[in-house]
Amino acid sequence: MTAIVVPDGSEFGINNLPYGIFSVPGSEKAVGVRVGDAVVDLSKSLGDSVFAQPTLNAFMARGRAWWIEARARIVELIETDAVPADAMHPLDTVSLHLPFEVADYVDFYASEHHATNLGRLFRPDSEPLLPNWKHLPVGYHGRAGTIVVSGTDITRPRGQRKAPDRPTPDFGPSLRLDIEAEMGFVVGVPSETPIGTDDFENHVFGVCIVNDWSARDIQAWEYVPLGPNLGKSFATSISPWVVPLLALEEARIATPEQVPEPLPYLRESRSWALDIELTVEWNGHEVSRPPYRTMYWSPAQMLAHCTVNGASARTGDMFASGTISGPDKNQRGAFIELTWGGKEPVTLGDQTRTFLEDGDTVAISASAPGPSGTRIGFGTVTGRITPSP
Amino acid sequence: MTAIVVPDGSEFGINNLPYGIFSVPGSEKAVGVRVGDAVVDLSKSLGDSVFAQPTLNAFMARGRAWWIEARARIVELIETDAVPADAMHPLDTVSLHLPFEVADYVDFYASEHHATNLGRLFRPDSEPLLPNWKHLPVGYHGRAGTIVVSGTDITRPRGQRKAPDRPTPDFGPSLRLDIEAEMGFVVGVPSETPIGTDDFENHVFGVCIVNDWSARDIQAWEYVPLGPNLGKSFATSISPWVVPLLALEEARIATPEQVPEPLPYLRESRSWALDIELTVEWNGHEVSRPPYRTMYWSPAQMLAHCTVNGASARTGDMFASGTISGPDKNQRGAFIELTWGGKEPVTLGDQTRTFLEDGDTVAISASAPGPSGTRIGFGTVTGRITPSP
Repeated sequence: MTAIVVPDGSEFGINNLPYGIFSVPGSEKAVGVRVGDAVVDLSKSLGDSVFAQPTLNAFMARGRAWWIEARARIVELIETDAVPADAMHPLDTVSLHLPFEVADYVDFYASEHHATNLGRLFRPDSEPLLPNWKHLPVGYHGRAGTIVVSGTDITRPRGQRKAPDRPTPDFGPSLRLDIEAEMGFVVGVPSETPIGTDDFENHVFGVCIVNDWSARDIQAWEYVPLGPNLGKSFATSISPWVVPLLALEEARIATPEQVPEPLPYLRESRSWALDIELTVEWNGHEVSRPPYRTMYWSPAQMLAHCTVNGASARTGDMFASGTISGPDKNQRGAFIELTWGGKEPVTLGDQTRTFLEDGDTVAISASAPGPSGTRIGFGTVTGRITPSP
Repeated sequence: MTAIVVPDGSEFGINNLPYGIFSVPGSEKAVGVRVGDAVVDLSKSLGDSVFAQPTLNAFMARGRAWWIEARARIVELIETDAVPADAMHPLDTVSLHLPFEVADYVDFYASEHHATNLGRLFRPDSEPLLPNWKHLPVGYHGRAGTIVVSGTDITRPRGQRKAPDRPTPDFGPSLRLDIEAEMGFVVGVPSETPIGTDDFENHVFGVCIVNDWSARDIQAWEYVPLGPNLGKSFATSISPWVVPLLALEEARIATPEQVPEPLPYLRESRSWALDIELTVEWNGHEVSRPPYRTMYWSPAQMLAHCTVNGASARTGDMFASGTISGPDKNQRGAFIELTWGGKEPVTLGDQTRTFLEDGDTVAISASAPGPSGTRIGFGTVTGRITPSP
């Protein structure tokens, strides 16, 4: 049996307990929970085959009553110093893997500031916010098969891009490679019927950080009329830890006032808007602090919208918020906004940047309020750009 | 051992041999091949565990050399009357299931006639064909989790739709429920690198019929700027039989002339355009005969485009052509085009229709040229509309 010491001020204390998939040399993948700077192997400490799995999906599918029970048992293990010695690994000795098998991936567009900024940049001659935007959470399906775990190198995508002053497109590596700092919501319990906003917590297991890498030049040329495709589909990175919704009670807040009032299926009796603070670092320099609390649509509204037409939801479905941008310039979650389409470079130490260069690394971190003044950490999603082949 | 008699003129002769997943009462799902009006259980006749599976995925992943060998062994079984008696089932005694586990689903927009018609209907004040359309196969990701097999009832979706003369949307059952008659291409062999047009046949296993049900009122309100979402995501039906690419040699033709010449990565040394004839029946009345040969982009061009940015392809990825519409009115593969936005009703016996009514059934069939004047049948994808809950 082992006692786990959580460092003072850790964002991974007993109130957080995020789940992930880890392995150590010579062993299979298993479900682990992060406590301080340790990973507890649940396959060896809770004695349930649902944790001896290469993904969280089976655990996530079991449902909220079981999520609550597992969490209580983990807390008890830790508080009674009852974690078996062979189930405890220092964080820096494990490999972390994609935490769940992704079913469908939907990406929303729920920040009013981001949608307004992008509207101004992509469609300078029209109203930035389109007529539907305040009536429904606009979203589209992304590519599930190219979602990768934090730390995976991102190869610069190639594709068609058309310069504004040229009549035809050419082909080559993206010249405007960007990030989108987002949060992702992972469905645990499937449904064949619409998931109302008040049923959100019975279906959504947890939350991770998402970097929706975006090639703006490819996107700008391809996206009319059917939306983004190759400008996004090459890679989307997620953090290795999924913070359970159960850890986010203190982070719940109201959405900004929604005018006009949404249709009844989008109303919430108590909102699932969340007070998450993100930090974006570009080659180690902080360039932005996007505030999730400024998002117009809550994740419960997004899921209700996503299923109101009768579309089923599956275990492993992930829906992301879309870029999180606040009202201030240093709160923008995409470089196209931070640099205003590349016209206002940002300074990184003794260098400047507009879009990503080969070798650049981006790290997005996030945390939210927990009980008694603690913080609930989501960890970090990182990725480094490697050259086009 | 049993001799299988293929009826004269059957579209399911020895040159076709499409694969599907079937079951009989009391037995597990297995891989079957259709021969005439019989289904041969490959798990009981070829002695390979890859056929004792609930999906085609494991078989599809094995690759082209193995597809060729399996096909040769099936032909030999049939020609030597060597099918075990317990491996042969009359078609009308089996249940047919979704033939493969869908990974990612991409829907293209490859018919110039369809794109032009939809442009006129959705954007009457601008050029119908957008500037990118002749440079790249425009497409978007659809919802993989709501792909269902032929015969599954389709519940009328509900959602937001805004009447042109109203300032705000209302919510309710779609009033403009439509079909899209398409062909779908199924990836067998995965790839981490771009799949060039000449490598198409080494990755794509086969072809099925797709009905991409579309709620035009929901779609028209939601689709700007990120493309279709809830107007499509409620259901997409596919035929139960996947015709192997190996059966379609005689169907290969050239695409229509492509002007301007596509970028090098989209050129084909020998095109995979296909001479497939579709038939659309609405409540038993033929309303259209969409000609696949008129599609501007070939499926090999679509897959090359889909992966050129570095996006991986997985076993079970399906990409569909988009609605197939020829130049003539009776060749249009969607009712919004056939009825010109609902303004020109079609006659079905003693009734007329603009969009789908509850209880309506749509059946889309397809076939292509085979050797020696035979036809290669794809079978039929059917669906009946049931009311919104």
